[in-house]
Amino acid sequence: MNTFGNIFRLTSFGESHGEAIGGVIDGCPSGIPVDKLFIQNELNRRKPGQSPLATPRREADEVEFLSGIYEGKTTGTPVGFIVKNTNAHALDYDNLRDVFRPSHADYTYQKKYGIRDHRGGGRSSARETIARVVAGAFAKLVLRKSDIEIVAYTSQVGTVCLDKSYTELDLSRIESSPVRCPDPEKAQQMIDLIETVKAEGDTVGGVVSCVCRGVPAGLGEPVFGKLHAALGNAMLSINAVKGFEYGMGFEGVRYKGSEMNDAFYLKQDGKTGTKTNHSGGIQGGISNGEDIYFRVAFKPVATIFKVQQTVDKEGNEILLKVHGRHDPCVLSRAVPVVEAMAAMVILDYCLLTNIYPQTSGSHPQQTV
Amino acid sequence: MNTFGNIFRLTSFGESHGEAIGGVIDGCPSGIPVDKLFIQNELNRRKPGQSPLATPRREADEVEFLSGIYEGKTTGTPVGFIVKNTNAHALDYDNLRDVFRPSHADYTYQKKYGIRDHRGGGRSSARETIARVVAGAFAKLVLRKSDIEIVAYTSQVGTVCLDKSYTELDLSRIESSPVRCPDPEKAQQMIDLIETVKAEGDTVGGVVSCVCRGVPAGLGEPVFGKLHAALGNAMLSINAVKGFEYGMGFEGVRYKGSEMNDAFYLKQDGKTGTKTNHSGGIQGGISNGEDIYFRVAFKPVATIFKVQQTVDKEGNEILLKVHGRHDPCVLSRAVPVVEAMAAMVILDYCLLTNIYPQTSGSHPQQTV
Amino acid sequence: MNTFGNIFRLTSFGESHGEAIGGVIDGCPSGIPVDKLFIQNELNRRKPGQSPLATPRREADEVEFLSGIYEGKTTGTPVGFIVKNTNAHALDYDNLRDVFRPSHADYTYQKKYGIRDHRGGGRSSARETIARVVAGAFAKLVLRKSDIEIVAYTSQVGTVCLDKSYTELDLSRIESSPVRCPDPEKAQQMIDLIETVKAEGDTVGGVVSCVCRGVPAGLGEPVFGKLHAALGNAMLSINAVKGFEYGMGFEGVRYKGSEMNDAFYLKQDGKTGTKTNHSGGIQGGISNGEDIYFRVAFKPVATIFKVQQTVDKEGNEILLKVHGRHDPCVLSRAVPVVEAMAAMVILDYCLLTNIYPQTSGSHPQQTV
Amino acid sequence: MNTFGNIFRLTSFGESHGEAIGGVIDGCPSGIPVDKLFIQNELNRRKPGQSPLATPRREADEVEFLSGIYEGKTTGTPVGFIVKNTNAHALDYDNLRDVFRPSHADYTYQKKYGIRDHRGGGRSSARETIARVVAGAFAKLVLRKSDIEIVAYTSQVGTVCLDKSYTELDLSRIESSPVRCPDPEKAQQMIDLIETVKAEGDTVGGVVSCVCRGVPAGLGEPVFGKLHAALGNAMLSINAVKGFEYGMGFEGVRYKGSEMNDAFYLKQDGKTGTKTNHSGGIQGGISNGEDIYFRVAFKPVATIFKVQQTVDKEGNEILLKVHGRHDPCVLSRAVPVVEAMAAMVILDYCLLTNIYPQTSGSHPQQTV
Repeated sequence: MNTFGNIFRLTSFGESHGEAIGGVIDGCPSGIPVDKLFIQNELNRRKPGQSPLATPRREADEVEFLSGIYEGKTTGTPVGFIVKNTNAHALDYDNLRDVFRPSHADYTYQKKYGIRDHRGGGRSSARETIARVVAGAFAKLVLRKSDIEIVAYTSQVGTVCLDKSYTELDLSRIESSPVRCPDPEKAQQMIDLIETVKAEGDTVGGVVSCVCRGVPAGLGEPVFGKLHAALGNAMLSINAVKGFEYGMGFEGVRYKGSEMNDAFYLKQDGKTGTKTNHSGGIQGGISNGEDIYFRVAFKPVATIFKVQQTVDKEGNEILLKVHGRHDPCVLSRAVPVVEAMAAMVILDYCLLTNIYPQTSGSHPQQTV
Repeated sequence: MNTFGNIFRLTSFGESHGEAIGGVIDGCPSGIPVDKLFIQNELNRRKPGQSPLATPRREADEVEFLSGIYEGKTTGTPVGFIVKNTNAHALDYDNLRDVFRPSHADYTYQKKYGIRDHRGGGRSSARETIARVVAGAFAKLVLRKSDIEIVAYTSQVGTVCLDKSYTELDLSRIESSPVRCPDPEKAQQMIDLIETVKAEGDTVGGVVSCVCRGVPAGLGEPVFGKLHAALGNAMLSINAVKGFEYGMGFEGVRYKGSEMNDAFYLKQDGKTGTKTNHSGGIQGGISNGEDIYFRVAFKPVATIFKVQQTVDKEGNEILLKVHGRHDPCVLSRAVPVVEAMAAMVILDYCLLTNIYPQTSGSHPQQTV
Repeated sequence: MNTFGNIFRLTSFGESHGEAIGGVIDGCPSGIPVDKLFIQNELNRRKPGQSPLATPRREADEVEFLSGIYEGKTTGTPVGFIVKNTNAHALDYDNLRDVFRPSHADYTYQKKYGIRDHRGGGRSSARETIARVVAGAFAKLVLRKSDIEIVAYTSQVGTVCLDKSYTELDLSRIESSPVRCPDPEKAQQMIDLIETVKAEGDTVGGVVSCVCRGVPAGLGEPVFGKLHAALGNAMLSINAVKGFEYGMGFEGVRYKGSEMNDAFYLKQDGKTGTKTNHSGGIQGGISNGEDIYFRVAFKPVATIFKVQQTVDKEGNEILLKVHGRHDPCVLSRAVPVVEAMAAMVILDYCLLTNIYPQTSGSHPQQTV
Repeated sequence: MNTFGNIFRLTSFGESHGEAIGGVIDGCPSGIPVDKLFIQNELNRRKPGQSPLATPRREADEVEFLSGIYEGKTTGTPVGFIVKNTNAHALDYDNLRDVFRPSHADYTYQKKYGIRDHRGGGRSSARETIARVVAGAFAKLVLRKSDIEIVAYTSQVGTVCLDKSYTELDLSRIESSPVRCPDPEKAQQMIDLIETVKAEGDTVGGVVSCVCRGVPAGLGEPVFGKLHAALGNAMLSINAVKGFEYGMGFEGVRYKGSEMNDAFYLKQDGKTGTKTNHSGGIQGGISNGEDIYFRVAFKPVATIFKVQQTVDKEGNEILLKVHGRHDPCVLSRAVPVVEAMAAMVILDYCLLTNIYPQTSGSHPQQTV
């Protein structure tokens, strides 16, 4: 259950304060040039310490590849990789050895396994998402060849919420914003809010929106492998995610069928399109060629610097005040993780559906 | 991709106007008394024609079991079952043979497969959920032995929305309401709204809420098999679902960590509990022993009786007016489907985690 | 665990004396004309009562399709099918209700499940292979389009063993032989042996050999999904199979590397081939374009009509003499089952490797 | 397809001359003391350079653990591990860059992927089995708690074949034999044969026999997950394996049912046993509590030091003479690999069947 995907698969391992975080990417098509700068840049987007808004933990987060690449290209065999943990302050966690932090996974791990690595949350730490970002970067490198593009951004932090859809925003502004919000005014309000809650020793949640452009029609299995169900499953596997909706989502239930249906028409190129896209690019679980878009809800970070009531392993009620290095808001760092998971799902479904154009000259598909 | 689950698995088949809908339930524990009245009653809850609010299509929806049951008990071998389609009006669909109904799966099936059974939506028809309800009924029969109970209800229809949480409602009133809403006043408003949109030839969406009680702590795999991701995947596989959230969901992103964290305390029985349950019974992907609750968004039914613009298979723009028998609102019939999927997930995870207490006297677990 | 395959998948159900044997075929490409005569003929090859050498149980073994086919072609949605059990003599088995027949699955089912349908062996009956033959027939229909052909035959019965390889035999003679052995002289010896053991109330085992021609190079996953491992797993899943070998198999261990290596050379058409084929068409787990061939060992049927010592469910030692209708030798009926499993594996790996040429005009592969 | 297992799973990666061989073990029960000396010793049994009979390539083959272990015990989270490649002589292979060695995987990798790491066979090298031995060592550590023991030995090298079954041999002598054959006289004949073929620049194959003792009754899924099919699939996934048989295997087809059936009787402890064990401990795909035994055929090593005819990537026929460091016979080093794969299968099926006794005090199974 540490493996994700059907054909393009990531198996991940690693704890926050162990030797390394790493993973194995299986099923990546062969012959893909491995753009290591791009991959490292994706990791840097997720890295802590990017701005005063994020945790000051500083990690190089440099990825080392151990297999699956030869003379700069993927070989089709599994890509093993590791990212070493270098800035682990395990002592920060010594007082948490026997304590269950509220709304963390401490208690449930203890119940499930009877043992846990408490340092930095162990396996439940968001450092695990490093492996996802690496695998997602490979998926993006493959999807690029088919002009499939995946872009995510912060659309809500606490009560500050974008009032425009992705079609009304300038998505090229995402990366220049410290909160990865493309609306400069809202972005500033989000920053202000994060600084306020940080000063209070508190945290705040938010929403990441994501759009996948250029996805061909026909991706998705109609019953238990619906494309949006795979995307939802992927997003809900990210730490702190509490909800997923695509197309008009929860908002759409307020409307009537006549308002929500997407009328088909003929586009100028003679292909079939829809006039509106309330469906979010997926109908009956299968992509229809329109943009796929969805929203992912992140709860506020559970680690706060206020006194909280809790219980320890021996069953004593105690008061807890946590120290250490933590984000007041993870949204900006969650953006590349959402993109990575989306890229993995879209590529996996391309491969499942035999849609991806093969790369290598002597691949049997060409010769049969 | 017509198979759902890991240990407890349903493989389903069947089209709306084919011979039969059916499925194979694999991995059901042996020795479970098969309460056929209960199973049929679950099917009846999903059946069309229950009230003037639903489609007048009348189907007996009687399930026939073909295997896996001996002298009234499950044997541990797969349970094959079918429900015959008796009231199919295929002729109603003749004019739809080459037409793509807006916001249906007609177009995407055609793109994916190059061929489709257009009658009643074929495989994309909600009649497919029959198989889920049968398998869910088996799951409920097993879970009953562990006092795990799963209850769903309609919490929103269009703009009519319950303002109480499940702890404030009398859930015993669900089944007596034609819309399966436990708040009589809101239920009446929902009924009024459905009748209005029906008269307009229109449809309306809504939200089903679900609560799972008695689920033990320790269910769920921490990374890619999080319990809530499995539930989300299950719900998003149901026809017309556009969103899933658990615990405080999207609403929770507005709050601070100090407001959302669930403080641990010792319950009267000495066990660890949480004072609040904003987490929705799951922390770090693993159940914590509190109630699990979640919400599922259903879009308005795509079949409306108004003129719509669309395109046919040959690429002509046309005007379409649909006839036939359709629900103006599927929420009441969706309730048992949500419960069925939740029951399958919870049982599957019990079996994955070795939590389910074995039933049969000579099972090897006892003798080893 | 009643599901076989990765992309092309069979889920089977049914007991010997239950209502029906059946299955669900998932992942079959769309647009395949369903040649029902061919499918029924495959079932007839497996059917009991074909000759005096086989069990006199007479079953029509007529397959009914319930879904996944529209206007004579596959639609890409799952094909549900059933074959009713019409000639079940359950009373024959009444004295076996609490008895464990030697070398049958009675004891192990009882230990595993604590309950079992004893009639005719229940789920462990070879009637379960009906579902495999149906699914295999679909796989053959698809493979035909790529000129891939799979042929099996009886190469050994008891001590009577063919001394020629498949390249030295006239495989067109297989079906005209009651034991499905293409060497007329050996076939007669086999028949004589079967009649002798039948007269003694005894049974005898044998070997089925199989060759797959026209399989393109490149099928198979190199580590845990080796093509021959998939074939071996498939064959070992057939009732009564005790061994699998491919290429030179166990015999090959006696030779030196210099004797066993297959030298590469250029064929007349300029393609690379091997001068010998000791490898059996698979190198490093991946097909190399040469014929794939393998052998499958079947133990003698466990049901004999001699007095045997055994134990009953209550733990008493007893003497058992079985009555009923049973084959003295299953080899001829095993031939189509071996072919069916091989066809399913080869097609599944074609689809996994994106080798199968898509059939339908508007399939997205063509348009992307 | 670089992942093996259902609940206890190994995902492996790495090439012969890449940075490292490694893997991820998922699903290992928590609370297991990690006996690193034992694990390293298992690796040493597989290591090259153990005796003059094996390749002189010298590798430390020291395993480094990166995750999943805390304070000396497994935590239930995935165990990432690597073994660095330190003694790689990549230059030895420069002349093989564009050449297809006969009966190696060079040609098929090239056809499948269109690119390959030719150094030392890349991913197709038997160095990949390192990951299996590490994972198998973990499985053995878990199985030990249930007194399940797995022992393999060399039973044939070329034409030198043991004439005794495992019950007639002193299995404690296996490890003191350079060929891991417990019969001293035959062992010496095997050594003599290996030295002869080595002197000729040739190689020789053989058979590994394996016995699993203490396996409880009830393991195995009756149709497509038969225990022996899982074992066969595991063994056929090992490099150079050409055949698998269990119980009486191919030899058993020569006998009659009355000779092969295993009569049940009551053992002195009152439990049911079988007088003979021709079945090999598995009936109907499910373990019956008797010893499980099977045999695995290994072809002669394909790398020989004689001139061979072959073809290069550009399609020229050439003569090839290989240099480098290679085993004349892999049988002794294959023994721990066979054991490792068997241990992984048996543990996986224990976990699938809920048979393994949980280890940790607060595991939910105890509290529910």
